Amino acid sequence: MAPPVLGIMGSFKGHALPGSFFLIAGIWWTGKHSLWHATRRNKNIGSTRLTSRASQRRLEIIESSVILFLSFVGMLAEQFFADGPRLQLYDFVEKHWEQLANWQHATMYLFFGLAGTVSLIIHTTEAAPLALDRLMLAVAFFNEGFLFLYHLHGRNMLDVHVHQLLLYAIFGEALVAFLEVFHRGNIILELLRCTLTILQGSWFWQIGFVLYPPQGLVWDLKDHNNAMFVTMCYSWHLAFAMLVVSVLYCTVSCVVRSRLKKTPPIEMGLLKHRERDPESEDEIL
Amino acid sequence: MAPPVLGIMGSFKGHALPGSFFLIAGIWWTGKHSLWHATRRNKNIGSTRLTSRASQRRLEIIESSVILFLSFVGMLAEQFFADGPRLQLYDFVEKHWEQLANWQHATMYLFFGLAGTVSLIIHTTEAAPLALDRLMLAVAFFNEGFLFLYHLHGRNMLDVHVHQLLLYAIFGEALVAFLEVFHRGNIILELLRCTLTILQGSWFWQIGFVLYPPQGLVWDLKDHNNAMFVTMCYSWHLAFAMLVVSVLYCTVSCVVRSRLKKTPPIEMGLLKHRERDPESEDEIL
Amino acid sequence: MAPPVLGIMGSFKGHALPGSFFLIAGIWWTGKHSLWHATRRNKNIGSTRLTSRASQRRLEIIESSVILFLSFVGMLAEQFFADGPRLQLYDFVEKHWEQLANWQHATMYLFFGLAGTVSLIIHTTEAAPLALDRLMLAVAFFNEGFLFLYHLHGRNMLDVHVHQLLLYAIFGEALVAFLEVFHRGNIILELLRCTLTILQGSWFWQIGFVLYPPQGLVWDLKDHNNAMFVTMCYSWHLAFAMLVVSVLYCTVSCVVRSRLKKTPPIEMGLLKHRERDPESEDEIL
Amino acid sequence: MAPPVLGIMGSFKGHALPGSFFLIAGIWWTGKHSLWHATRRNKNIGSTRLTSRASQRRLEIIESSVILFLSFVGMLAEQFFADGPRLQLYDFVEKHWEQLANWQHATMYLFFGLAGTVSLIIHTTEAAPLALDRLMLAVAFFNEGFLFLYHLHGRNMLDVHVHQLLLYAIFGEALVAFLEVFHRGNIILELLRCTLTILQGSWFWQIGFVLYPPQGLVWDLKDHNNAMFVTMCYSWHLAFAMLVVSVLYCTVSCVVRSRLKKTPPIEMGLLKHRERDPESEDEIL
Repeated sequence: MAPPVLGIMGSFKGHALPGSFFLIAGIWWTGKHSLWHATRRNKNIGSTRLTSRASQRRLEIIESSVILFLSFVGMLAEQFFADGPRLQLYDFVEKHWEQLANWQHATMYLFFGLAGTVSLIIHTTEAAPLALDRLMLAVAFFNEGFLFLYHLHGRNMLDVHVHQLLLYAIFGEALVAFLEVFHRGNIILELLRCTLTILQGSWFWQIGFVLYPPQGLVWDLKDHNNAMFVTMCYSWHLAFAMLVVSVLYCTVSCVVRSRLKKTPPIEMGLLKHRERDPESEDEIL
Repeated sequence: MAPPVLGIMGSFKGHALPGSFFLIAGIWWTGKHSLWHATRRNKNIGSTRLTSRASQRRLEIIESSVILFLSFVGMLAEQFFADGPRLQLYDFVEKHWEQLANWQHATMYLFFGLAGTVSLIIHTTEAAPLALDRLMLAVAFFNEGFLFLYHLHGRNMLDVHVHQLLLYAIFGEALVAFLEVFHRGNIILELLRCTLTILQGSWFWQIGFVLYPPQGLVWDLKDHNNAMFVTMCYSWHLAFAMLVVSVLYCTVSCVVRSRLKKTPPIEMGLLKHRERDPESEDEIL
Repeated sequence: MAPPVLGIMGSFKGHALPGSFFLIAGIWWTGKHSLWHATRRNKNIGSTRLTSRASQRRLEIIESSVILFLSFVGMLAEQFFADGPRLQLYDFVEKHWEQLANWQHATMYLFFGLAGTVSLIIHTTEAAPLALDRLMLAVAFFNEGFLFLYHLHGRNMLDVHVHQLLLYAIFGEALVAFLEVFHRGNIILELLRCTLTILQGSWFWQIGFVLYPPQGLVWDLKDHNNAMFVTMCYSWHLAFAMLVVSVLYCTVSCVVRSRLKKTPPIEMGLLKHRERDPESEDEIL
Repeated sequence: MAPPVLGIMGSFKGHALPGSFFLIAGIWWTGKHSLWHATRRNKNIGSTRLTSRASQRRLEIIESSVILFLSFVGMLAEQFFADGPRLQLYDFVEKHWEQLANWQHATMYLFFGLAGTVSLIIHTTEAAPLALDRLMLAVAFFNEGFLFLYHLHGRNMLDVHVHQLLLYAIFGEALVAFLEVFHRGNIILELLRCTLTILQGSWFWQIGFVLYPPQGLVWDLKDHNNAMFVTMCYSWHLAFAMLVVSVLYCTVSCVVRSRLKKTPPIEMGLLKHRERDPESEDEIL
């Protein structure tokens, strides 16, 4: 392990923080997509009162702004917090790179910031094609995985292993987001993306507990049995993430349907045709 | 080889048991999909008398219940049978993990149980999108392959090799099930999935014979010629699985057609249009 | 290099023979698909006189029979020709496998034979879905690549390298054939498959020249510069294969059009609509 | 490092030259596709005055000719410039291959030349299916990546690393071009291809600066921190490429819209229907 490279991420907090963000993002996305899917499925019984196109757009704008803001804060924190490199890249005196880990994390935030910016532009103006927001998300996750992939040189076996497991969630999510470019509004892909986001979030917490145990009980980073347990533990996190997404999806579906039953739809007579493919959103361009 | 890690799977029976389950599942699925495909193709000559939508749904519910039940039994067996860990994960006295292999196998069963549960919910209620059952199947197989992948540390060359060959069938099946999310009811993909399930089942038996030969004739686990033979043997298993699926498919097709010829269709005059794409199921949502 | 494993393939002839078969198959397929594509494109000016559905089916049956026959001959040759194992798999006296390489090659032929059989059944009866012939072709090529992949243990660097390059063509062809299951009749994929078949054929010849040079000029199998040249040479073979396919395609297209111009179409007035998507065949099932 | 193998590419200029070409190609493609996309989107307000089908075809012909010409010049330069092999492949006196690196680069140019030739034939005659130009582009990029992949034997760690990073852009571009065979005219894929082309171009410049620093400040090719910095630097190049493409796309979109507003459309009344899917080009065949 190379101590000077670690930066603020080399601590329990440094893993719990992004973990919490991904957990919140996953739960938020699950709620959003569940609500919209329930709205689309129940269109004929007047569910459009619950979420109109305009309110959907407003939600997207708020979400993009929050992502952009958090990415910006993250970049600043990596640069100026504690031992940050303070925008200095190379120490010409001692001839070594300044805090490369911090710079790498700032780069990860940068790409999520770019994704947020593009999403903001797409939903405020009509300038760009809609599917671009999913492509940017795919690029942001791919970039995160790409930097992690070359981030593991010279670490201990278990340290490498827990980060490699993380790559499954990250690259899987990049792939799902890329597939969404072509199958936008497919609820299966959306829920899969939510699941992988929550998996990533909870796994960041797990990494924190394994590498920087708060109670001081240190793990043997070279014991193969630990690696075997950690692998299995990853499966459990996946099962947990699937459970969370399922419960949220069912709750939202039930609430939407029960609210629709109470208030009889007024505009129903105006509807001329049922939606043909309830699994895919109409493309607005 | 690390003897304390092996659990009940480290025996001939431990491989023959899951092998038999996968063989039965593969044959069952082949019959089911062949029957439904024959029904769809011969819709215009009244085949819907043989399998109605309601009977299809009933069959799916029974299948899901059986999968759920067997997964539950499997999990209990791994935990409490013989040397099972009895839900104890860590031995704090001797500071080592308890029976990790058993825990891993129980985790594999858990994911098949989850797939069964979700399938049950989909087919009894209208809560979830239909394609979710294939996604859950894909996740269950992926998880099985994922755990096997990190399961092989420190074993002998041939032991590793026979398990790696198994991964082709497992990951192949995960991929095919994932493709079925987008191409539901495509008979080609369904038969391919059946073939890979039977291949997996018969290969589990083969692994049992290679690693724990019942007649006592021990294989040299380090001889490269054995590895070459085993590779070829895998191809033969694939050919055998394809043969079984073909024979079953043809038998079912013939039986359906001959039964339809005997009893003339009554409702034929009511049909207004032939089905457009006989290779894909109608999506009910 | 393990001399007793090599069999009849371990010679110049053993590589030239399959090479010639693949070359002929590639050229034949190019001609067939070019003709059918030209026919589909010029349907409205009466090209259906040149190839009717019935003649197409007859051609497919002949092709399948030839593939089946050649595979059968190949299997017999590997078993009984020269030092073949004569269906004996294990020498119980000296406790070693009999001629594993011959058995492996016979297994490769077996899968091409299976593909031929299935194609024959599809085109003579109505029993099976049409797309199954491409799936079986994909499986046959995948199996060929799979056996080659585990075929290279303990050989010299250049020997391994030339066979690894072959795998690009083989697995590429398996992938393209699998894509054709979903995009049947797409001329781009068909020509790509033809190109890769010709590439495979000409590369088999090249392997023969490199490993068993007929003029006796032996290559240094450990020289890295030779590996670099061979890699580039593979690109040239690809360019050559693309050239052959292009020339054949253009020739067939021109001949079809010139023949159509000479004889004015009679049935033209009967056509009510132009074909909608000229790149994809109508699916007959 | 093997000095006699390097050829003219083993210098700063040798990397800056192809880098500049890819930069120009990426910017050109961005402009072209942005213009056409804006034209398609604004068809109903008369934008077809700006680019007609005929002018699009003329542009494609010019582009293909330029690619063909530059590839030809590139091949000649590699063969006859400075220490080129002058079409001699093998030195029979000293028994070694002549300038293999130059031959490899010429082979890369050859495939881009082939792509240009095919594109020229497609757009001047009606002989070949339209989607073939993207397939040829995919093959050309795949071939470039394939040759680079086996080009790195025996070099220093950082030298290998910077070239491996290049492969992400090259193989990514090959994949995107292959996807365009099936999703022609999808603006997302087109812009992604442009981005990867610019990334490739700017990374070639970066490789030149790292391996052959013009100011004489030599990089330590074995320092792992340098590799970490270079990885991150690659992300920055990607962000830069995305920025360039975004700015160009927005500029072109705005210019098209503002020009359309100034001159009221005349032929508007003649339009009977809005385009159905503005993200995909009409297929001319």
